[in-house]
Amino acid sequence: MSLFSFCQNAENAGFSKKTCIFPPVVIEYIRSFFIKESIMNYLNCSAEELEREYQSLKNKYDEEKAKGLNLNMARGKPGKEQLDLSNGILDVFTSESNFIGDDGVDIRNYGILDGIYECRKMFGQVLGVDSENVMIGGNSSLNMMFDTISCMMTKPIVEGCDAWYKVENRKFLCPSPGYDRHFGITGYYGFEMIPIPMTENGPDMDMIEELVANDDSIKGIWCVPKYSNPQGITYSDETVRRFANLKPAAKDFRIIWDNAYCIHDITDTPDSLLNIYDECKKAGNEDLPILFCSTSKITFPGAGVAAMAASKNNMKVFKERYNYQIISYDKMNMLRHVQYFGDYNGMLEHMKKHKAVLKPKFDIVLNALASELEPVGIGEWTKPNGGYFVSIDVLEGTAKRVVQLCKEAGVVLTGAGATYPYGKDPKDSNIRLAPTFPPNDELVTAMEIFCICAKLAACEKLLQK
Amino acid sequence: MSLFSFCQNAENAGFSKKTCIFPPVVIEYIRSFFIKESIMNYLNCSAEELEREYQSLKNKYDEEKAKGLNLNMARGKPGKEQLDLSNGILDVFTSESNFIGDDGVDIRNYGILDGIYECRKMFGQVLGVDSENVMIGGNSSLNMMFDTISCMMTKPIVEGCDAWYKVENRKFLCPSPGYDRHFGITGYYGFEMIPIPMTENGPDMDMIEELVANDDSIKGIWCVPKYSNPQGITYSDETVRRFANLKPAAKDFRIIWDNAYCIHDITDTPDSLLNIYDECKKAGNEDLPILFCSTSKITFPGAGVAAMAASKNNMKVFKERYNYQIISYDKMNMLRHVQYFGDYNGMLEHMKKHKAVLKPKFDIVLNALASELEPVGIGEWTKPNGGYFVSIDVLEGTAKRVVQLCKEAGVVLTGAGATYPYGKDPKDSNIRLAPTFPPNDELVTAMEIFCICAKLAACEKLLQK
Repeated sequence: MSLFSFCQNAENAGFSKKTCIFPPVVIEYIRSFFIKESIMNYLNCSAEELEREYQSLKNKYDEEKAKGLNLNMARGKPGKEQLDLSNGILDVFTSESNFIGDDGVDIRNYGILDGIYECRKMFGQVLGVDSENVMIGGNSSLNMMFDTISCMMTKPIVEGCDAWYKVENRKFLCPSPGYDRHFGITGYYGFEMIPIPMTENGPDMDMIEELVANDDSIKGIWCVPKYSNPQGITYSDETVRRFANLKPAAKDFRIIWDNAYCIHDITDTPDSLLNIYDECKKAGNEDLPILFCSTSKITFPGAGVAAMAASKNNMKVFKERYNYQIISYDKMNMLRHVQYFGDYNGMLEHMKKHKAVLKPKFDIVLNALASELEPVGIGEWTKPNGGYFVSIDVLEGTAKRVVQLCKEAGVVLTGAGATYPYGKDPKDSNIRLAPTFPPNDELVTAMEIFCICAKLAACEKLLQK
Repeated sequence: MSLFSFCQNAENAGFSKKTCIFPPVVIEYIRSFFIKESIMNYLNCSAEELEREYQSLKNKYDEEKAKGLNLNMARGKPGKEQLDLSNGILDVFTSESNFIGDDGVDIRNYGILDGIYECRKMFGQVLGVDSENVMIGGNSSLNMMFDTISCMMTKPIVEGCDAWYKVENRKFLCPSPGYDRHFGITGYYGFEMIPIPMTENGPDMDMIEELVANDDSIKGIWCVPKYSNPQGITYSDETVRRFANLKPAAKDFRIIWDNAYCIHDITDTPDSLLNIYDECKKAGNEDLPILFCSTSKITFPGAGVAAMAASKNNMKVFKERYNYQIISYDKMNMLRHVQYFGDYNGMLEHMKKHKAVLKPKFDIVLNALASELEPVGIGEWTKPNGGYFVSIDVLEGTAKRVVQLCKEAGVVLTGAGATYPYGKDPKDSNIRLAPTFPPNDELVTAMEIFCICAKLAACEKLLQK
């Protein structure tokens, strides 16, 4: 029995809505009581009850399927409303503009390998490092991460170490669930990928400390330290400090610190992340982290600006490569971004507009999960203060089935398992929900269908159908 | 005696200019007669004559040096006047524009790994291939070439072959003089680079055919087939056909066909280049070439669009990598370029404007060489119909000295030797002149100084100073 049905029953039984106003804490108590004790908690149901629920869900599902919908919650793509927020950036330059930046160079021409000064300065603030540690890239931080790993594959980042290509049993740590495209890069380069469980404070640091201390073939770890993909977890101060104080057996172990959602809050109670670079300096470990970010989810995913930062030692090796790889990235787009925002504070102001668009979308997702799945006891999910995803663990062994059911009913989700290395979720339970792209009305429908599918798959599983 | 002095003497001796109008062919005959027979041809001079010339040049040089100039003919950079030609591209998009391209995708967002259709179509015409063989990149074809070599370093382009990293004695053919940044890439990746002499028809094909047929550790060759860098030579039809019919011992041998100057004519008698891709298909060698081009010298070097093309087999391997490397390159800049030009013909029309700017610059260089160096017999240079450079061979053993003298007098040239692998010009005679960047008045001065330096260095050498 759902809380809603309970209240309806109670009302039918004579309780008026007016006499039934409790303070929120009481409501929450009643709600969790009913969730735990509900006879409709699938895990406590009889086979008959489940069979009835299954038939009812199946009917609803078939109705939805018949509509021939085409909805997409697969990727962390900004929606049209978000893209429109940045259209003004296209008015920054016209044929009449001045094209000389702070370096005194015509930005239309070749030159300035590490990016124009004003852009390095702004991204230095985003990443919490000096501008001299920053290098600006093209439109994709993923590309810079790929190039960074590529670099270390064929050139040692530390003199005396082997290039990673030569390390036959090379390994990489992968906090999981995590970002599929991270795992894709180390998969492409033949690393054995070791999943590290995530906790509410970030990856399991006990496990990481022990692994890296004893195995010099472990060469790095993928991190999305703030509003992690997909869980929206922000690493605790202690986690950041423990990262900064790692003592890896491999001298060329590197932390890939992908701060993709560094200023991407969606609530009024945003998380804060300790500055990894400062902590590493304190610990005498300045060469450990390599930081990344981009404006893909600030301006345009297809036409933004990406940046990386690292110690002087690291950047020397990367820049030697970049020096052969390119003459300069798109300086016009760099200056376009700087002039559009004015400065870092302008960028933060701009993010408030995204927040205003995204908050209702996350509410749609979280409300649907709370009203539909919480009562039947078959899911656990995160309630992030920022980022791009809600991560849900559906009933163990049903994630693939849920994604398949959704797909057949016209709702595309991120593939089940995608959040784990090799695409293998050992429990087959994690699904990444990406609420940003669909318009709100479509998102409501998509979430209705998702919840039906999650419940339907759970019934099937429990009934061993 | 220079032709000018001869004419002046003749005039003083009673010949009026009016009575002295000969058809061009006669003028040319007289000119070459005087060049061959000139008593001032350094190679025929007495030590005394040379010493007088040396002193006179030294005085001129010191005068120029005292001016403290700061001129640059080092890189193939478009000048301001050329950059201004494309400013209109910045008016293509405003905040009010429509951002849906032919693929039906919002170009501001993620997606379309190989680039938007209309852009692939346009670059297909530039490269002479079907749009389906084209992939669009960021702002740099050098970057795409680097990534292409990087790809083959760690993944075999042909199943069963070793990744090049594993081939310890890997080699690459380098037509020389050539493009220093090409050699930089294969140098970075530890290839032994084998210089291939250039002829007026392109690289020495006899040598190439023999080398590749007998050594399977030779993995590729760098080519700038039209208006080659630095000589401005366009490969003859026979050369292209011989390339297309190569039978390399290495199954994974690839021709890097950098068509950087494919539509970059500077005279009214442009060269034409046979379509390598068509010829390779005819020869059953479709997988042999990988083609590159960009708009760096069409719109903006700092904010253009690059493209590559290759067979389906090759692209499958490259795209697998790109799929992990990036989600999509800057589609907004792709559509900006397509809309600005309208189509390929619009691009060709645009190139006529560049030609109008560049022709006078090349004339300044060629006229200076003809009037100053030809008479004294110490240089040989190319007279290209397009491209970005004039390549000159100064007196053997003096190129480094000429570049140094120029530098000390405030004229920066491409480093001597840069046009050869490892920066080693065996004859120390080749210098690349890049006339495009300086304003015309500066170019005149720079060429005056260059000619003084070339002559001064020659006198020093001949006098064994």
